[in-house]
Amino acid sequence: MADPSTAPPLTRVSVQAAHKLIEPYIHKTPVLTNATLNRLASTPRTEAELAGSEWAGRTPAKPVLRFWFKCENFQKIGAFKARGAFHAIERLKQEPGWAEGGGRERGVITHSSGNHAQALSLASRSSSIPCTIVMPTISSPAKIAATRSYGSEIIFSGPTSAEREAVTSSVIAQTGARLVPPYDHSDIILGQGTAALELQSQVPPTTTLHGIITPCGGGGLLSGTALACEGTGIRVFGAEPSFEGADDGRRGFAAGRRIESVKSLTIADGLRTVLGRIPWEIMYERRLVAGMYSVSEDEIKQAMRLVYERMKVVVEPSAVVGLAVALYNEEFRGMVEREGGVEGWDLGVVFSGGNVSLEMLGGLFA
Amino acid sequence: MADPSTAPPLTRVSVQAAHKLIEPYIHKTPVLTNATLNRLASTPRTEAELAGSEWAGRTPAKPVLRFWFKCENFQKIGAFKARGAFHAIERLKQEPGWAEGGGRERGVITHSSGNHAQALSLASRSSSIPCTIVMPTISSPAKIAATRSYGSEIIFSGPTSAEREAVTSSVIAQTGARLVPPYDHSDIILGQGTAALELQSQVPPTTTLHGIITPCGGGGLLSGTALACEGTGIRVFGAEPSFEGADDGRRGFAAGRRIESVKSLTIADGLRTVLGRIPWEIMYERRLVAGMYSVSEDEIKQAMRLVYERMKVVVEPSAVVGLAVALYNEEFRGMVEREGGVEGWDLGVVFSGGNVSLEMLGGLFA
Repeated sequence: MADPSTAPPLTRVSVQAAHKLIEPYIHKTPVLTNATLNRLASTPRTEAELAGSEWAGRTPAKPVLRFWFKCENFQKIGAFKARGAFHAIERLKQEPGWAEGGGRERGVITHSSGNHAQALSLASRSSSIPCTIVMPTISSPAKIAATRSYGSEIIFSGPTSAEREAVTSSVIAQTGARLVPPYDHSDIILGQGTAALELQSQVPPTTTLHGIITPCGGGGLLSGTALACEGTGIRVFGAEPSFEGADDGRRGFAAGRRIESVKSLTIADGLRTVLGRIPWEIMYERRLVAGMYSVSEDEIKQAMRLVYERMKVVVEPSAVVGLAVALYNEEFRGMVEREGGVEGWDLGVVFSGGNVSLEMLGGLFA
Repeated sequence: MADPSTAPPLTRVSVQAAHKLIEPYIHKTPVLTNATLNRLASTPRTEAELAGSEWAGRTPAKPVLRFWFKCENFQKIGAFKARGAFHAIERLKQEPGWAEGGGRERGVITHSSGNHAQALSLASRSSSIPCTIVMPTISSPAKIAATRSYGSEIIFSGPTSAEREAVTSSVIAQTGARLVPPYDHSDIILGQGTAALELQSQVPPTTTLHGIITPCGGGGLLSGTALACEGTGIRVFGAEPSFEGADDGRRGFAAGRRIESVKSLTIADGLRTVLGRIPWEIMYERRLVAGMYSVSEDEIKQAMRLVYERMKVVVEPSAVVGLAVALYNEEFRGMVEREGGVEGWDLGVVFSGGNVSLEMLGGLFA
């Protein structure tokens, strides 16, 4: 993670530069289409389906949708997080004085038990930079083992963010390791934006994307996507779980100010985080995200089932929240109907990751 | 299903002709590679791992393996069975006198509760030919609904094969529908062989496949693959579950005669069938299959887990039996070590299908 004072401007050109830097390290993930999901999304929901929801009694929307799924579940470490982590490491290697001052030996550090931990572990190992991960003691053995397999040192902390940050600070004080936060930093955001940049070049030349929707947790992926689309005419949307207030981004947009804490145990475990400060500036203050939408836990599970059974690809719950919005959120669907008319919309949908254990799947669907 | 007396010869050229016939209807499924699985397969198993097995005390084999996964889980209806069904229907449409004699109106019929039922339903609907499926009353509601969604008529029977055949015969007597059996017919076998034909053209020009391994139930896929490889130098192998004697192909090869009945409830539910007569002739009597290998239920589950967690694609238990042989069967691995040496082998592995419900996954792994 380079010194923020040397950060590139938060623009589409910087996302393009980030892509050049990380291209040798990441997968250019495929973009899939699926006729069945297009048909389902382009079929109005029934009044019976809307009966129990906040849209009860409304006339169901009639959008026409063609999906372009950007499959970051096939990315290295199984999630888009590899993009931001490789970018942070490459930028760090370019920072004047960092290597000469012994930065390489002091290494990098982050606190995470999820995909960012594995991403940073892989990226730092690829450049032979030592890496420390601070993880809550309650992390699953599978995640601990996966992170350890990349050669990172793991230090355990208590489960609250205050406890994690205290342990992290004390390690930094001892070792001088550089902190690479999971989303609230421009190098990370620019790296995550490269997925949407690739997607733009992967649709056929005759197709114009009208929008891209991504999941939103800390906001790194969504704000990076917004930068990657700035000036292109592609509208960017964020998707969140509504469970226990995990839709802090949507609520913040409605209130006109960033929500600063969230405590949700949504099944979309990658999206339990509160939206970061820099993502908020990009998304809300610069007006680069056109709207935030949320879905229920059941809708997330239903979208997962469709992706498994119809597309035959493995996704984690967080990954399908954008698809769930397009299938089930009447506010979003009504907007597509109004804006897209009979022609409809070509919608990019980012599948953010595929790291789910078969045991967790079993628990969700048994 | 065309009259067998008009069947094309069982040769590679006929598989090529079958491919031309069905190409407009099927997906050219992708071929995937995976560095982690190559690494795992090329790492000798430990003595501890072999301890409980029939290879206890042996020196673990040291094969070098590079996999080319032919992903028929992405095929229409989620399995290779679409190939045989479309070929049977196309051949039927070409049969002299069939349409003129009212064959189209009399339609087609089969007995199956699995992928063949859906495949025939789709193929016949694509040509507006009525289709009847005889299913045991104990079939899962999901499979009944899936088959019905293609517009086939469903008639229920008792669970034994005698009961299913009796119901089928009585329907044929009433309606004159043409029977399209699931595997023991040359049109079906030639259609299934087209997957291996495609695979041969999908590896890079610099790669020579040394072998192809496929799952073996009734033997349609395996014998079709054998025909598709005849004269190419590519060796063909079959993979079966050993549970409750489902490895009737392997046992038949050992005994020198086809086993004629099997009753197994292996989790690889597509492979519970006994090997058919025509597949046996191709595989054993014409010596077109080089070897049959089997694996345990646990090894199938372990291979499934690797495919889900490392490749992020959805496969049904039957689909991974070939991969499980390459990973865990020391007899197969020792053969690759001897024949492939330090250069190793490029091995085609057919993932036969991806039709598994999340509930079944839950039951297997919860």
